[in-house]
Amino acid sequence: MKMVPISPNVSARMQEKRRKILECALELFAEQGYDNTPVKDIIDKSGFGTGTFYKYFNNREDVLQTLLSEFLDQIIDCVNEYFAREKDLYLRFVGAKLVILEVFIQNQKMAGIYSRVTGISSESIRECIKEFEERFIQFTSKNIQFGIKQGVFREVPAVPLAHSVLAVIKHMIFKWTVLKDISTEEMLNMTTIILEIMAVSLVVKNNPREP
Amino acid sequence: MKMVPISPNVSARMQEKRRKILECALELFAEQGYDNTPVKDIIDKSGFGTGTFYKYFNNREDVLQTLLSEFLDQIIDCVNEYFAREKDLYLRFVGAKLVILEVFIQNQKMAGIYSRVTGISSESIRECIKEFEERFIQFTSKNIQFGIKQGVFREVPAVPLAHSVLAVIKHMIFKWTVLKDISTEEMLNMTTIILEIMAVSLVVKNNPREP
Repeated sequence: MKMVPISPNVSARMQEKRRKILECALELFAEQGYDNTPVKDIIDKSGFGTGTFYKYFNNREDVLQTLLSEFLDQIIDCVNEYFAREKDLYLRFVGAKLVILEVFIQNQKMAGIYSRVTGISSESIRECIKEFEERFIQFTSKNIQFGIKQGVFREVPAVPLAHSVLAVIKHMIFKWTVLKDISTEEMLNMTTIILEIMAVSLVVKNNPREP
Repeated sequence: MKMVPISPNVSARMQEKRRKILECALELFAEQGYDNTPVKDIIDKSGFGTGTFYKYFNNREDVLQTLLSEFLDQIIDCVNEYFAREKDLYLRFVGAKLVILEVFIQNQKMAGIYSRVTGISSESIRECIKEFEERFIQFTSKNIQFGIKQGVFREVPAVPLAHSVLAVIKHMIFKWTVLKDISTEEMLNMTTIILEIMAVSLVVKNNPREP
Protein backbone atom coordinates (compact mmCIF):
# COMPACT_ATOMS: atom_id res chain seq x y z
CA MET A 1 0.00 0.00 0.00
CA LYS A 2 1.25 3.48 -0.85
CA MET A 3 1.93 5.87 2.03
CA VAL A 4 -0.41 8.85 1.90
CA PRO A 5 0.73 12.09 3.62
CA ILE A 6 -1.65 13.13 6.38
CA SER A 7 -3.00 16.65 7.01
CA PRO A 8 -6.10 17.18 9.23
CA ASN A 9 -8.74 18.25 6.67
CA VAL A 10 -7.45 16.63 3.53
CA SER A 11 -6.70 13.33 5.21
CA ALA A 12 -10.31 12.66 6.25
CA ARG A 13 -11.50 13.10 2.65
CA MET A 14 -8.61 10.99 1.38
CA GLN A 15 -9.33 8.22 3.88
CA GLU A 16 -12.96 8.27 2.77
CA LYS A 17 -11.99 7.86 -0.89
CA ARG A 18 -9.54 5.08 -0.07
CA ARG A 19 -12.22 3.30 1.97
CA LYS A 20 -14.74 3.65 -0.88
CA ILE A 21 -12.28 2.07 -3.36
CA LEU A 22 -11.67 -0.82 -0.96
CA GLU A 23 -15.42 -1.34 -0.49
CA CYS A 24 -16.05 -1.38 -4.24
CA ALA A 25 -13.21 -3.85 -4.78
CA LEU A 26 -14.57 -6.10 -2.02
CA GLU A 27 -18.02 -6.13 -3.66
CA LEU A 28 -16.60 -6.90 -7.10
CA PHE A 29 -14.10 -9.57 -5.96
CA ALA A 30 -16.91 -11.31 -4.06
CA GLU A 31 -19.41 -11.03 -6.93
CA GLN A 32 -17.37 -11.82 -10.03
CA GLY A 33 -14.15 -13.23 -8.58
CA TYR A 34 -10.76 -11.56 -8.16
CA ASP A 35 -9.46 -12.99 -11.42
CA ASN A 36 -12.38 -11.57 -13.41
CA THR A 37 -12.16 -8.09 -11.91
CA PRO A 38 -9.83 -5.69 -13.76
CA VAL A 39 -8.78 -2.44 -12.07
CA LYS A 40 -11.05 -0.62 -14.54
CA ASP A 41 -14.14 -2.23 -12.97
CA ILE A 42 -13.08 -1.04 -9.52
CA ILE A 43 -12.49 2.49 -10.81
CA ASP A 44 -15.86 2.55 -12.63
CA LYS A 45 -17.76 1.31 -9.58
CA SER A 46 -16.05 3.83 -7.27
CA GLY A 47 -17.00 6.72 -9.58
CA PHE A 48 -13.53 8.26 -9.14
CA GLY A 49 -10.97 8.90 -11.88
CA THR A 50 -8.09 6.58 -12.73
CA GLY A 51 -5.62 8.96 -11.04
CA THR A 52 -7.47 8.73 -7.73
CA PHE A 53 -7.18 4.94 -7.73
CA TYR A 54 -3.44 5.05 -8.37
CA LYS A 55 -2.95 7.68 -5.65
CA TYR A 56 -3.89 5.02 -3.10
CA PHE A 57 -3.00 1.69 -4.71
CA ASN A 58 -0.29 0.43 -7.05
CA ASN A 59 -2.46 -2.25 -8.65
CA ARG A 60 -5.14 -4.85 -8.05
CA GLU A 61 -2.87 -7.07 -5.89
CA ASP A 62 -2.22 -4.06 -3.66
CA VAL A 63 -5.99 -3.72 -3.11
CA LEU A 64 -6.34 -7.42 -2.27
CA GLN A 65 -3.34 -7.27 0.06
CA THR A 66 -4.85 -4.27 1.87
CA LEU A 67 -8.22 -6.02 2.20
CA LEU A 68 -6.62 -9.19 3.59
CA SER A 69 -4.36 -7.23 5.90
CA GLU A 70 -7.18 -5.06 7.31
CA PHE A 71 -9.30 -8.18 7.72
CA LEU A 72 -6.55 -9.83 9.74
CA ASP A 73 -6.14 -6.65 11.83
CA GLN A 74 -9.84 -6.90 12.61
CA ILE A 75 -9.49 -10.58 13.60
CA ILE A 76 -6.53 -9.79 15.88
CA ASP A 77 -8.34 -6.82 17.47
CA CYS A 78 -11.41 -8.94 18.21
CA VAL A 79 -9.33 -11.74 19.72
CA ASN A 80 -7.40 -9.25 21.86
CA GLU A 81 -10.69 -7.75 23.08
CA TYR A 82 -11.86 -11.26 23.96
CA PHE A 83 -8.59 -11.93 25.81
CA ALA A 84 -9.23 -8.80 27.87
CA ARG A 85 -12.54 -10.36 29.01
CA GLU A 86 -11.55 -14.04 29.31
CA LYS A 87 -8.51 -14.82 31.48
CA ASP A 88 -8.79 -18.63 31.61
CA LEU A 89 -6.11 -19.83 29.16
CA TYR A 90 -7.79 -23.17 28.57
CA LEU A 91 -11.16 -21.62 27.68
CA ARG A 92 -9.30 -19.12 25.50
CA PHE A 93 -7.91 -21.86 23.24
CA VAL A 94 -11.35 -22.76 21.88
CA GLY A 95 -13.01 -19.39 22.57
CA ALA A 96 -10.55 -17.34 20.54
CA LYS A 97 -11.19 -19.48 17.46
CA LEU A 98 -14.94 -18.98 17.80
CA VAL A 99 -14.28 -15.23 17.94
CA ILE A 100 -12.28 -15.60 14.71
CA LEU A 101 -15.14 -17.49 13.05
CA GLU A 102 -17.50 -14.72 14.17
CA VAL A 103 -15.33 -12.19 12.32
CA PHE A 104 -15.52 -14.39 9.21
CA ILE A 105 -19.31 -14.65 9.61
CA GLN A 106 -19.61 -10.87 9.90
CA ASN A 107 -17.44 -10.50 6.79
CA GLN A 108 -18.87 -13.27 4.64
CA LYS A 109 -17.72 -11.64 1.39
CA MET A 110 -14.16 -11.39 2.65
CA ALA A 111 -14.37 -15.04 3.76
CA GLY A 112 -15.39 -16.07 0.25
CA ILE A 113 -12.59 -14.04 -1.33
CA TYR A 114 -9.99 -15.57 1.01
CA SER A 115 -11.28 -19.09 0.32
CA ARG A 116 -11.16 -18.56 -3.44
CA VAL A 117 -7.99 -16.55 -4.14
CA THR A 118 -5.94 -19.50 -2.90
CA GLY A 119 -6.65 -21.11 -6.27
CA ILE A 120 -5.01 -18.34 -8.29
CA SER A 121 -1.53 -19.17 -9.56
CA SER A 122 0.14 -15.76 -9.50
CA GLU A 123 3.29 -14.83 -7.60
CA SER A 124 1.78 -11.65 -6.13
CA ILE A 125 -1.34 -13.44 -4.86
CA ARG A 126 0.86 -16.11 -3.33
CA GLU A 127 2.72 -13.34 -1.49
CA CYS A 128 -0.56 -11.81 -0.22
CA ILE A 129 -1.74 -15.13 1.19
CA LYS A 130 1.68 -16.00 2.57
CA GLU A 131 1.82 -12.71 4.47
CA PHE A 132 -1.74 -13.18 5.80
CA GLU A 133 -1.11 -16.75 6.96
CA GLU A 134 2.34 -16.03 8.43
CA ARG A 135 0.90 -13.21 10.56
CA PHE A 136 -1.94 -15.49 11.66
CA ILE A 137 0.54 -18.24 12.64
CA GLN A 138 2.72 -15.76 14.56
CA PHE A 139 -0.24 -14.41 16.51
CA THR A 140 -1.67 -17.84 17.30
CA SER A 141 1.62 -19.53 18.21
CA LYS A 142 2.55 -16.61 20.48
CA ASN A 143 -0.68 -17.21 22.41
CA ILE A 144 -0.03 -20.96 22.66
CA GLN A 145 3.52 -20.25 23.89
CA PHE A 146 2.06 -17.96 26.55
CA GLY A 147 -0.11 -20.84 27.80
CA ILE A 148 2.95 -23.12 27.91
CA LYS A 149 4.96 -20.53 29.88
CA GLN A 150 2.10 -20.17 32.34
CA GLY A 151 2.16 -23.94 32.89
CA VAL A 152 -1.42 -24.39 31.64
CA PHE A 153 -0.46 -26.19 28.41
CA ARG A 154 1.99 -29.04 27.89
CA GLU A 155 5.24 -28.35 26.02
CA VAL A 156 3.65 -28.77 22.58
CA PRO A 157 5.33 -27.43 19.41
CA ALA A 158 3.44 -24.12 19.10
CA VAL A 159 4.00 -23.35 15.40
CA PRO A 160 2.75 -26.70 14.03
CA LEU A 161 -0.24 -26.48 16.40
CA ALA A 162 -0.98 -22.96 15.14
CA HIS A 163 -0.89 -24.38 11.60
CA SER A 164 -3.44 -27.03 12.51
CA VAL A 165 -5.70 -24.30 13.93
CA LEU A 166 -5.38 -22.29 10.70
CA ALA A 167 -5.99 -25.47 8.68
CA VAL A 168 -9.22 -26.25 10.53
CA ILE A 169 -10.51 -22.67 10.24
CA LYS A 170 -9.68 -22.52 6.50
CA HIS A 171 -11.33 -25.87 5.85
CA MET A 172 -14.50 -24.92 7.74
CA ILE A 173 -14.70 -21.51 6.04
CA PHE A 174 -14.26 -23.29 2.69
CA LYS A 175 -17.07 -25.75 3.42
CA TRP A 176 -19.32 -22.94 4.61
CA THR A 177 -18.64 -20.31 1.95
CA VAL A 178 -17.52 -22.23 -1.18
CA LEU A 179 -18.91 -25.78 -0.95
CA LYS A 180 -21.88 -24.39 1.02
CA ASP A 181 -22.58 -27.84 2.47
CA ILE A 182 -22.70 -26.72 6.11
CA SER A 183 -24.75 -24.01 7.78
CA THR A 184 -23.22 -21.27 9.96
CA GLU A 185 -24.34 -23.16 13.05
CA GLU A 186 -22.86 -26.46 11.81
CA MET A 187 -19.58 -24.69 11.06
CA LEU A 188 -19.41 -23.30 14.61
CA ASN A 189 -20.40 -26.63 16.18
CA MET A 190 -17.95 -28.73 14.19
CA THR A 191 -15.08 -26.30 14.78
CA THR A 192 -15.82 -26.31 18.52
CA ILE A 193 -15.75 -30.12 18.62
CA ILE A 194 -12.44 -30.28 16.71
CA LEU A 195 -10.79 -27.64 18.89
CA GLU A 196 -12.00 -29.38 22.05
CA ILE A 197 -10.38 -32.63 20.82
CA MET A 198 -7.14 -30.70 20.20
CA ALA A 199 -7.38 -28.93 23.56
CA VAL A 200 -7.37 -32.28 25.40
CA SER A 201 -3.83 -32.88 24.19
CA LEU A 202 -2.80 -29.41 25.37
CA VAL A 203 -3.71 -29.86 29.00
CA VAL A 204 -0.89 -30.57 31.46
CA LYS A 205 -0.99 -33.72 33.58
CA ASN A 206 -2.69 -33.33 37.01
CA ASN A 207 -4.69 -30.41 35.66
CA PRO A 208 -8.23 -30.73 37.04
CA ARG A 209 -9.58 -30.19 33.49
CA GLU A 210 -8.03 -33.38 32.21
CA PRO A 211 -10.77 -35.85 31.27
CA MET B 1 -18.05 -40.71 -16.16
CA LYS B 2 -19.75 -42.53 -19.04
CA MET B 3 -20.05 -46.29 -18.79
CA VAL B 4 -18.06 -47.97 -21.56
CA PRO B 5 -19.15 -51.52 -22.53
CA ILE B 6 -16.33 -54.01 -22.06
CA SER B 7 -15.31 -56.74 -24.51
CA PRO B 8 -11.91 -58.48 -24.19
CA ASN B 9 -9.97 -57.11 -27.22
CA VAL B 10 -11.64 -53.80 -27.81
CA SER B 11 -11.68 -52.88 -24.13
CA ALA B 12 -7.86 -52.88 -23.77
CA ARG B 13 -7.49 -50.40 -26.63
CA MET B 14 -10.35 -48.31 -25.29
CA GLN B 15 -8.87 -48.27 -21.83
CA GLU B 16 -5.57 -47.12 -23.31
CA LYS B 17 -7.24 -44.23 -25.16
CA ARG B 18 -9.18 -43.23 -22.06
CA ARG B 19 -5.98 -43.34 -20.00
CA LYS B 20 -4.17 -41.22 -22.60
CA ILE B 21 -6.90 -38.54 -22.50
CA LEU B 22 -6.72 -38.46 -18.69
CA GLU B 23 -2.92 -38.12 -18.77
CA CYS B 24 -3.08 -35.25 -21.29
CA ALA B 25 -5.72 -33.47 -19.19
CA LEU B 26 -3.62 -33.91 -16.04
CA GLU B 27 -0.60 -32.35 -17.78
CA LEU B 28 -2.61 -29.42 -19.10
CA PHE B 29 -4.56 -28.73 -15.88
CA ALA B 30 -1.26 -28.72 -13.95
CA GLU B 31 0.56 -26.55 -16.49
CA GLN B 32 -2.00 -23.92 -17.47
CA GLY B 33 -4.70 -24.36 -14.81
CA TYR B 34 -8.07 -26.09 -15.09
CA ASP B 35 -9.87 -22.83 -15.84
CA ASN B 36 -7.56 -22.03 -18.77
CA THR B 37 -7.82 -25.47 -20.36
CA PRO B 38 -10.70 -25.89 -22.82
CA VAL B 39 -11.67 -29.40 -23.95
CA LYS B 40 -10.15 -28.56 -27.34
CA ASP B 41 -6.66 -28.38 -25.78
CA ILE B 42 -7.09 -31.83 -24.26
CA ILE B 43 -8.28 -33.26 -27.59
CA ASP B 44 -5.38 -31.64 -29.48
CA LYS B 45 -2.79 -32.91 -27.01
CA SER B 46 -4.21 -36.44 -27.08
CA GLY B 47 -4.04 -36.57 -30.88
CA PHE B 48 -7.47 -38.23 -31.03
CA GLY B 49 -10.58 -36.84 -32.71
CA THR B 50 -13.33 -34.95 -30.93
CA GLY B 51 -15.62 -38.00 -31.13
CA THR B 52 -13.13 -40.14 -29.23
CA PHE B 53 -13.04 -37.67 -26.34
CA TYR B 54 -16.83 -37.61 -26.03
CA LYS B 55 -16.99 -41.41 -26.16
CA TYR B 56 -15.29 -41.45 -22.76
CA PHE B 57 -16.18 -38.14 -21.13
CA ASN B 58 -19.18 -35.82 -21.12
CA ASN B 59 -17.17 -32.65 -20.59
CA ARG B 60 -14.16 -31.12 -18.84
CA GLU B 61 -15.72 -31.47 -15.36
CA ASP B 62 -16.19 -35.18 -16.04
CA VAL B 63 -12.44 -35.47 -16.72
CA LEU B 64 -11.57 -33.62 -13.51
CA GLN B 65 -14.01 -35.72 -11.52
CA THR B 66 -12.47 -38.92 -12.92
CA LEU B 67 -8.94 -37.70 -12.11
CA LEU B 68 -9.92 -36.78 -8.53
CA SER B 69 -11.83 -40.01 -8.07
CA GLU B 70 -8.99 -42.23 -9.36
CA PHE B 71 -6.54 -40.27 -7.22
CA LEU B 72 -8.65 -40.95 -4.14
CA ASP B 73 -8.93 -44.64 -5.11
CA GLN B 74 -5.13 -44.71 -5.17
CA ILE B 75 -4.93 -43.05 -1.73
CA ILE B 76 -7.42 -45.54 -0.26
CA ASP B 77 -5.61 -48.52 -1.84
CA CYS B 78 -2.26 -47.37 -0.42
CA VAL B 79 -3.72 -46.84 3.06
CA ASN B 80 -5.38 -50.27 2.95
CA GLU B 81 -2.06 -51.87 1.92
CA TYR B 82 -0.42 -50.08 4.85
CA PHE B 83 -3.16 -51.32 7.20
CA ALA B 84 -2.40 -54.86 6.05
CA ARG B 85 1.21 -54.38 7.25
CA GLU B 86 0.62 -52.27 10.38
CA LYS B 87 -1.81 -53.63 12.94
CA ASP B 88 -1.14 -51.19 15.82
CA LEU B 89 -4.15 -48.84 15.71
CA TYR B 90 -2.30 -46.03 17.48
CA LEU B 91 0.63 -46.07 15.05
CA ARG B 92 -1.86 -46.28 12.20
CA PHE B 93 -3.42 -42.91 13.07
CA VAL B 94 -0.26 -40.99 12.18
CA GLY B 95 1.19 -43.58 9.77
CA ALA B 96 -1.83 -43.66 7.47
CA LYS B 97 -1.64 -39.89 6.97
CA LEU B 98 2.03 -40.11 6.04
CA VAL B 99 1.06 -42.76 3.48
CA ILE B 100 -1.51 -40.30 2.12
CA LEU B 101 1.10 -37.53 1.88
CA GLU B 102 3.39 -39.98 0.03
CA VAL B 103 0.65 -40.49 -2.57
CA PHE B 104 0.40 -36.70 -2.94
CA ILE B 105 4.20 -36.48 -3.29
CA GLN B 106 4.20 -39.16 -5.97
CA ASN B 107 1.40 -37.28 -7.76
CA GLN B 108 2.61 -33.72 -7.36
CA LYS B 109 0.68 -32.50 -10.42
CA MET B 110 -2.56 -33.93 -9.06
CA ALA B 111 -1.78 -32.32 -5.67
CA GLY B 112 -1.42 -28.93 -7.36
CA ILE B 113 -4.66 -29.36 -9.29
CA TYR B 114 -6.57 -30.33 -6.12
CA SER B 115 -5.11 -27.36 -4.22
CA ARG B 116 -6.05 -24.94 -6.98
CA VAL B 117 -9.47 -26.04 -8.27
CA THR B 118 -10.94 -25.20 -4.86
CA GLY B 119 -10.79 -21.55 -5.97
CA ILE B 120 -13.07 -22.05 -8.97
CA SER B 121 -16.62 -20.88 -8.44
CA SER B 122 -18.57 -23.32 -10.58
CA GLU B 123 -21.34 -25.64 -9.42
CA SER B 124 -19.86 -28.70 -11.16
CA ILE B 125 -16.38 -28.17 -9.66
CA ARG B 126 -17.97 -27.76 -6.26
CA GLU B 127 -19.66 -31.13 -6.76
CA CYS B 128 -16.35 -32.76 -7.76
CA ILE B 129 -14.59 -31.52 -4.63
CA LYS B 130 -17.57 -32.29 -2.41
CA GLU B 131 -17.60 -35.89 -3.62
CA PHE B 132 -13.84 -36.24 -3.17
CA GLU B 133 -13.88 -34.81 0.35
CA GLU B 134 -17.00 -36.70 1.46
CA ARG B 135 -15.42 -40.02 0.41
CA PHE B 136 -12.23 -39.07 2.23
CA ILE B 137 -14.17 -38.21 5.40
CA GLN B 138 -16.14 -41.47 5.23
CA PHE B 139 -12.98 -43.55 4.84
CA THR B 140 -11.10 -41.74 7.62
CA SER B 141 -13.95 -41.59 10.13
CA LYS B 142 -14.65 -45.31 9.59
CA ASN B 143 -11.07 -46.04 10.59
CA ILE B 144 -11.30 -43.81 13.68
CA GLN B 145 -14.56 -45.53 14.65
CA PHE B 146 -12.83 -48.91 14.35
CA GLY B 147 -10.18 -47.70 16.83
CA ILE B 148 -12.91 -46.58 19.23
CA LYS B 149 -14.70 -49.94 18.96
CA GLN B 150 -11.44 -51.75 19.68
CA GLY B 151 -11.03 -49.67 22.83
CA VAL B 152 -7.76 -48.08 21.63
CA PHE B 153 -9.21 -44.60 21.11
CA ARG B 154 -11.41 -42.55 23.41
CA GLU B 155 -15.03 -41.93 22.39
CA VAL B 156 -14.16 -38.94 20.17
CA PRO B 157 -16.59 -37.64 17.52
CA ALA B 158 -15.12 -39.41 14.48
CA VAL B 159 -16.51 -37.23 11.67
CA PRO B 160 -15.24 -33.87 13.04
CA LEU B 161 -11.86 -35.48 13.76
CA ALA B 162 -11.74 -36.81 10.18
CA HIS B 163 -12.42 -33.25 9.02
CA SER B 164 -9.50 -31.94 11.03
CA VAL B 165 -7.26 -34.59 9.44
CA LEU B 166 -8.42 -33.55 5.96
CA ALA B 167 -7.95 -29.87 6.92
CA VAL B 168 -4.36 -30.44 8.01
CA ILE B 169 -3.48 -32.46 4.91
CA LYS B 170 -5.08 -29.86 2.60
CA HIS B 171 -3.29 -27.00 4.33
CA MET B 172 0.09 -28.74 4.17
CA ILE B 173 -0.38 -29.71 0.51
CA PHE B 174 -1.34 -26.08 -0.21
CA LYS B 175 1.78 -24.72 1.51
CA TRP B 176 3.95 -27.27 -0.28
CA THR B 177 2.49 -27.09 -3.78
CA VAL B 178 0.94 -23.60 -4.12
CA LEU B 179 2.68 -21.29 -1.62
CA LYS B 180 5.85 -23.39 -2.02
CA ASP B 181 7.14 -22.13 1.32
CA ILE B 182 7.90 -25.58 2.78
CA SER B 183 9.99 -28.42 1.39
CA THR B 184 8.70 -31.98 1.06
CA GLU B 185 10.61 -32.93 4.20
CA GLU B 186 9.23 -29.98 6.17
CA MET B 187 5.72 -30.89 5.06
CA LEU B 188 6.14 -34.47 6.30
CA ASN B 189 7.75 -33.35 9.58
CA MET B 190 5.16 -30.71 10.39
CA THR B 191 2.25 -33.02 9.55
CA THR B 192 3.73 -35.74 11.77
CA ILE B 193 4.06 -33.29 14.68
CA ILE B 194 0.46 -32.07 14.27
CA LEU B 195 -0.96 -35.60 14.04
CA GLU B 196 1.04 -36.68 17.08
CA ILE B 197 -0.47 -33.79 19.05
CA MET B 198 -3.95 -34.88 17.89
CA ALA B 199 -3.17 -38.54 18.65
CA VAL B 200 -2.50 -37.70 22.31
CA SER B 201 -6.14 -36.72 22.73
CA LEU B 202 -7.24 -39.99 21.11
CA VAL B 203 -5.55 -42.31 23.55
CA VAL B 204 -7.72 -43.92 26.22
CA LYS B 205 -6.87 -43.40 29.89
CA ASN B 206 -4.52 -45.98 31.45
CA ASN B 207 -3.13 -46.76 28.02
CA PRO B 208 0.65 -47.28 28.38
CA ARG B 209 1.19 -44.87 25.46
CA GLU B 210 -0.27 -41.95 27.35
CA PRO B 211 2.45 -39.36 28.04
